[in-house]
Amino acid sequence: METGYKFIIYEEQNATAIISLNRPDMYNALNAEAKLEVVQAIRDANKNSAIRSIVLTGKGKAFSTGQDLNDRSVQSSLGPVDLGQTLQNEWNPLINSIRDSKKIIIAAVNGVCAGAGISVAIACDLIIAKPLTKFVGAFSRLGLAPDAGSTYTFVRALGYQKTMAFFLLGEPLMAEEMLAAGLINELDENPLVRSIEYSTAINKLSPISTEAIKKNLKFAMDANFNESMEREMYAQRFLGRSSDYKEGLSAFLEKRDPQFTGN
Amino acid sequence: METGYKFIIYEEQNATAIISLNRPDMYNALNAEAKLEVVQAIRDANKNSAIRSIVLTGKGKAFSTGQDLNDRSVQSSLGPVDLGQTLQNEWNPLINSIRDSKKIIIAAVNGVCAGAGISVAIACDLIIAKPLTKFVGAFSRLGLAPDAGSTYTFVRALGYQKTMAFFLLGEPLMAEEMLAAGLINELDENPLVRSIEYSTAINKLSPISTEAIKKNLKFAMDANFNESMEREMYAQRFLGRSSDYKEGLSAFLEKRDPQFTGN
Amino acid sequence: METGYKFIIYEEQNATAIISLNRPDMYNALNAEAKLEVVQAIRDANKNSAIRSIVLTGKGKAFSTGQDLNDRSVQSSLGPVDLGQTLQNEWNPLINSIRDSKKIIIAAVNGVCAGAGISVAIACDLIIAKPLTKFVGAFSRLGLAPDAGSTYTFVRALGYQKTMAFFLLGEPLMAEEMLAAGLINELDENPLVRSIEYSTAINKLSPISTEAIKKNLKFAMDANFNESMEREMYAQRFLGRSSDYKEGLSAFLEKRDPQFTGN
Repeated sequence: METGYKFIIYEEQNATAIISLNRPDMYNALNAEAKLEVVQAIRDANKNSAIRSIVLTGKGKAFSTGQDLNDRSVQSSLGPVDLGQTLQNEWNPLINSIRDSKKIIIAAVNGVCAGAGISVAIACDLIIAKPLTKFVGAFSRLGLAPDAGSTYTFVRALGYQKTMAFFLLGEPLMAEEMLAAGLINELDENPLVRSIEYSTAINKLSPISTEAIKKNLKFAMDANFNESMEREMYAQRFLGRSSDYKEGLSAFLEKRDPQFTGN
Repeated sequence: METGYKFIIYEEQNATAIISLNRPDMYNALNAEAKLEVVQAIRDANKNSAIRSIVLTGKGKAFSTGQDLNDRSVQSSLGPVDLGQTLQNEWNPLINSIRDSKKIIIAAVNGVCAGAGISVAIACDLIIAKPLTKFVGAFSRLGLAPDAGSTYTFVRALGYQKTMAFFLLGEPLMAEEMLAAGLINELDENPLVRSIEYSTAINKLSPISTEAIKKNLKFAMDANFNESMEREMYAQRFLGRSSDYKEGLSAFLEKRDPQFTGN
Repeated sequence: METGYKFIIYEEQNATAIISLNRPDMYNALNAEAKLEVVQAIRDANKNSAIRSIVLTGKGKAFSTGQDLNDRSVQSSLGPVDLGQTLQNEWNPLINSIRDSKKIIIAAVNGVCAGAGISVAIACDLIIAKPLTKFVGAFSRLGLAPDAGSTYTFVRALGYQKTMAFFLLGEPLMAEEMLAAGLINELDENPLVRSIEYSTAINKLSPISTEAIKKNLKFAMDANFNESMEREMYAQRFLGRSSDYKEGLSAFLEKRDPQFTGN
């Protein structure tokens, strides 16, 4: 398939879009262009009505080692550096495109995640990782601080004290610990194959239901109890009027598989 | 005891009120009237000064399977459906009556919880469940999304990714996993008996202290650190001026059991 | 070292300040003056540019048993008591001085923590505890409610139901359970020695990086995702312009240890 991408591969397999970071020699460190390509690919997959869910993975030994330190914009040796701008223009839009994707995105973590590469993985809706994969958040070694949403996610998943140790001391967190902390769904020797299995199951669901589930869970993380309950109410009102609910309820009562259309 | 209830049983045992969902043939699925009866029973127990805490359980094999799908209001085959209204008028008031109860409510989860039946259980202050009990949140099979407060509670307890898998893929969560996630206090072959033991211990505490503990913990879940600390301060000021604190401190220093009155 | 402190010992060991609660016969229960001394010692350590991090521990068998119940201000037998004032004037400022300390504070929990002594420990950035240490939050026995920030911290770490049981039923939480809940970093037979090892590692980091990590994690606990990501961006912009980042990046690329100055 000709897609015009330089740093990623975009494939479609049935109703699943597979986006592979493809700088294996760089352990999938991302420069500005690579990030834009991922954003574009997620946009394409969302526009394509034949696609129901997305798998994001990396080619080679790493999932992603985050910022490409050879990229001009972060090389302080070449003059003044604005890492804030790198976040504002490159990383945060990438993270937001994953979070805002109406279609579920599954991270198939095939190998090491470092720096903002961790942020990319944990922004995904489901995560399948290879056993013994290392997550390295050693920002403090560079005199920096964790970014791209990782402060928010880690304090909630690991707790404050363990997150402090992770980011201060630079010791890797193993996939097994991430699983225990609820940040990973499953370990599998072949995370891409397993992610496609998850994806295939999700592709059979009602797209308006999966979108509402994703949006409401993200909303509930930021909201208080009453706000969360109110939003659930609005979503359920909308879904209850859909053809998909009619179909789902009929299928349930008739003990057969539903055929959802997204209407 | 004649209480006029049709779908529940209300009993008092010493200072404990026991509310039992009583539609065992329907696995304690709740129609509109059953929900109102639970709300009423919680109100009664709160008004009765002889009652110090409440146990909520189910008769038969299930705790509750949530919405009674035979109830007219949710049957899309009969015309337009407003599930938002079912939440607004029935489920959310039930959840709020549990949360707002000044007296501690212990869920004795005797068997399967499904749909909004999970929301009822996790709204309670303490949960004792039978080992191997299944929690089934298969909203996506009906083309729906989780409701009645479950988005808020699950993202905090399980984390975002595990909650996504739970609600998308429809696989049951076992009581053992709920225990590990901090959503269940204890597993016991006879959750009702064990819940009454907890209740008996709670009945000896100062009612103004237990009410403050419940309110402050609920508040702290929604609030920031400073707001939480400020509320703790107001509560402690109030409690510090009570006769119960005077009695509690005396009993502590005299190494005897306190006799609390709620004053 | 002559420091003029009556209830604590303040020592400096290389770039580490060690603050030891020193009322071993009282299990390090704290009266008003002892709390003020800890606040003062943290302030001193923050002002001293030779100090890079702080260890807080207790002399004798206990870390701290919280409020000194012999202190006049909490003795209801002597007349009206305002526990709100004790929090407002004594405990909350102590908790805030730990949280607001720019330098990392490690709790070396050498023995039992009770009441607000728990709040002091969990306000620290890292916690090393002796195996089998008990944490006793039996506020309900006195007719009181948890305070000094413990409602906020425990509902997030243990979940609502387990926190309810902890504070209602008064059964101690073991250090092993605190570790599993993410509230403790490591168990060690000699928590002071181990804490100094952590401290020594932290002392080599860039002080502006450690301060940003601490502030951003605290911020992220209270903030929503977008606010957290925005603050990360500002911090990284600031750090990216520092000499320490230039040094960190050079050292990383040259595979040597960085020499940070805090500039």
